[in-house]
Amino acid sequence: MQSIKGARSSFRNINPYANRGMTLEADLEASNTFYLVNDIAIVHKKPTPITISKVDYPSRLQAVIREGYFRTPSTTDYNGIYKGKYIDFDAKETKSKTSFPLNNVHPHQIKHLESIARHGGIGFLIVRFTLLNKTFFISIEKLLEFMKNSNRKSIPLEYFEKEGYQIADKYNPRVDYIEVINKLYFGGKK
Amino acid sequence: MQSIKGARSSFRNINPYANRGMTLEADLEASNTFYLVNDIAIVHKKPTPITISKVDYPSRLQAVIREGYFRTPSTTDYNGIYKGKYIDFDAKETKSKTSFPLNNVHPHQIKHLESIARHGGIGFLIVRFTLLNKTFFISIEKLLEFMKNSNRKSIPLEYFEKEGYQIADKYNPRVDYIEVINKLYFGGKK
Repeated sequence: MQSIKGARSSFRNINPYANRGMTLEADLEASNTFYLVNDIAIVHKKPTPITISKVDYPSRLQAVIREGYFRTPSTTDYNGIYKGKYIDFDAKETKSKTSFPLNNVHPHQIKHLESIARHGGIGFLIVRFTLLNKTFFISIEKLLEFMKNSNRKSIPLEYFEKEGYQIADKYNPRVDYIEVINKLYFGGKK
Repeated sequence: MQSIKGARSSFRNINPYANRGMTLEADLEASNTFYLVNDIAIVHKKPTPITISKVDYPSRLQAVIREGYFRTPSTTDYNGIYKGKYIDFDAKETKSKTSFPLNNVHPHQIKHLESIARHGGIGFLIVRFTLLNKTFFISIEKLLEFMKNSNRKSIPLEYFEKEGYQIADKYNPRVDYIEVINKLYFGGKK
């Protein structure tokens, strides 16, 4: 990927450690921008769904929302395209050092990712154990497998280490989940 | 598609003419729901992007947005998956009877759809001439071809009739754009 080199050099004046400790969401935002400007993949975060109940028009040019409520998203937060394939995922953080509580994932998100996989897309979660500074890719297939075979309300860290893929902590892109997808679905070696 | 039959019969008590004259957006919402419940395709409209600048918490359970502003979307409104393929489009209406003004489409939307096509996805517009009650599918490739070969600021109706595909006005799904995609990209006959 020669384009990576070009992008790196254009960032060379920025302190590479300046953004350590950012949230997973911010890291993904930066990673998706990296993929976009280097024409590697096109992935965007969906806007937060809001029900608007009151809007003011203080000027002809601008509307101001004066009353609105957050809605529960019916799907996941991220989707896009990589090498022609539809990809779809959500990102979750946990402060637990031992397991990922499944109540972090809405049942309709599981159902949505399951449908995506059935239609030939790549569905997954990105889960970060913030206190361990470990970020994992776990496919919807492996997630469903766990839920089918266990009554536990949380997925142990060991399951991620065994059945998921740890995403290396890099400078740019910070959360290189496309590298994992490339290995898993496009014949790259692990 | 045997599932269509089942869905139709479950709607049989509803007056088929009750919703005539709805907006393209409402028609697409109904069509996408039809595709979803019949497991034909998974396509969602993205929420409107909003910048929130003030939130109240009148109770522990609910947040109320007290100040927010509409942002310009950086992509298109609709995306999803059909038969494993990534699909991405925007929907536009015009009251003109003769041509579709190109200032209805933001340059970044054109650029976005162009990238989608380059990455192997299916990018297009759905354009409705509301006063003619005609709705067309036009691929990003045909849109770019027009813009490359013409300095006109609007696309004549004839171009849609020749290079696009008129989407039949059906009961359910109301705007059956998947039928067009099936013909164009999956070897169905016209």
